[in-house]
Amino acid sequence: MNQLDSFSTRQAIVRKVNGFTSSTFPDVLSVEEPLEIRIRYGAGTARVQKSISVTMRTPGADADLALGFLFTEGIITSAGQVKNISHAGMECAAQKENIIEVALAETFMPNLMQSDRNFYTTSSCGVCGKGSIQSIRTVSPFQHLRKPPLVLDAAVLYTLPEKLSAAQSGFAATGGIHASGLFTADGTLLILKEDVGRHNALDKLIGSALNGQRLPLDQHILLLSGRASFELIQKAAMAGISVIAAIGAPSSLAVDLAIEFDITLFGFLKQSRFNIYHLSNHISIPALYEDQN
Amino acid sequence: MNQLDSFSTRQAIVRKVNGFTSSTFPDVLSVEEPLEIRIRYGAGTARVQKSISVTMRTPGADADLALGFLFTEGIITSAGQVKNISHAGMECAAQKENIIEVALAETFMPNLMQSDRNFYTTSSCGVCGKGSIQSIRTVSPFQHLRKPPLVLDAAVLYTLPEKLSAAQSGFAATGGIHASGLFTADGTLLILKEDVGRHNALDKLIGSALNGQRLPLDQHILLLSGRASFELIQKAAMAGISVIAAIGAPSSLAVDLAIEFDITLFGFLKQSRFNIYHLSNHISIPALYEDQN
Repeated sequence: MNQLDSFSTRQAIVRKVNGFTSSTFPDVLSVEEPLEIRIRYGAGTARVQKSISVTMRTPGADADLALGFLFTEGIITSAGQVKNISHAGMECAAQKENIIEVALAETFMPNLMQSDRNFYTTSSCGVCGKGSIQSIRTVSPFQHLRKPPLVLDAAVLYTLPEKLSAAQSGFAATGGIHASGLFTADGTLLILKEDVGRHNALDKLIGSALNGQRLPLDQHILLLSGRASFELIQKAAMAGISVIAAIGAPSSLAVDLAIEFDITLFGFLKQSRFNIYHLSNHISIPALYEDQN
Repeated sequence: MNQLDSFSTRQAIVRKVNGFTSSTFPDVLSVEEPLEIRIRYGAGTARVQKSISVTMRTPGADADLALGFLFTEGIITSAGQVKNISHAGMECAAQKENIIEVALAETFMPNLMQSDRNFYTTSSCGVCGKGSIQSIRTVSPFQHLRKPPLVLDAAVLYTLPEKLSAAQSGFAATGGIHASGLFTADGTLLILKEDVGRHNALDKLIGSALNGQRLPLDQHILLLSGRASFELIQKAAMAGISVIAAIGAPSSLAVDLAIEFDITLFGFLKQSRFNIYHLSNHISIPALYEDQN
């Protein structure tokens, strides 16, 4: 499977105002462009193309993004189901980079029930959260795996935000772009992905991990540069991730989902503190002393 | 039209880790729940219901959110086309608050082309940005209005971020929730809306302004608590907003769209500085001295 990359920042001339004086300076913008994800599936004369989604993303790692998206949506369940990924737009130059086609193996039939239905609205209880939680259970290939024990060290956790921003490009670390980082339990950064959309950064990470035969990610720590929403926990659950640390706050539904899937969830991770929203029984943090307040 | 409100935060017991000591504390989470937006339209026996969208939102101001969403998507063009808005789920308690039905006037036929098609993929040049920009031009009711001159004061701009966070609830100001604020040019806060999703916060604001007969918002400043993406500029354009200030960075496509629609766009707005990404000819900032560098 070929990997594709493209530019993720763009130069711009910006007028900077400081107090009541302004001057023009060269500056850098995070690129945001639409990406249409298409699949090609079936065999012989029955082989067809189908448009699955359009997302506003930062170019670069488009193949990872497409692969991760198809996987976290339950349309594919392994990298082996994919034959080739390539940029596919032919009608005009600007369009070419913004359409990516994932050609699936002839022998594999994708689960298009997942993409055709509205993910949140189809189960018995309608749109009450429970419905969508049930949907993920149904499609996650790792739902029945026993989770192996994992020992975490708070001292290692405290180093992760700094490692993530050090690994981001200088602009990305100071400017406006989301990052998802995959770490080992001893704090080694394995994968870092960035995007203007936080869900895309995570899809890129999961796509890269899927392509690298790393799933399930049950011995790892996923670090999110911002807040943790329902959608991010849902995607993490699909990849069998068992520890999520967010630098920002989790939402109520993110906490509910973490409990439901027994995913350990930390929030507000800083240099010397964090909050525990859910701690699985198979995760231990031995050096942590519990105050009896 | 009745307004509906609900709780937007939830209490939780959280284990807070500081260094290597942890204690449990009561904490507050931003509520994230799905909202399905349905419309009812047509007259007599031809009157039908249709599900338009499901969004993950913070409850509260659901009616504003639904109204703003339908407007920024071009499905309705005025508040007068709406007869009633009410929570509509009946099957179970949890569902009730998460479905909202907008009953349209019998005499009005909504523009469902907008909701049925994929917003980014249908125009002549496919998914290359240009297509979607063209789509907004077509549907914005304010596209042909001449924009009246507006004088801005940098000293006023510098006060806006503090005014926004002072007006947010204590939790919201420190924790993880997005805000959109609508100010007059002299810095008076008119509308403040919050949500876990930045696009929802803006839809709530525009829905509230539409309901209050304030559109087009061409004499106002829209303040965004975070970054400015394509989607936010697009929604602002629909409401005739002519000045947008973001506390965070704009994306490349946000800048392109601001130029295309001649919307003045400021980014990185802090207490004594900001960046100008586009300044319309009809906007002036008299006290600003331009350095000749």
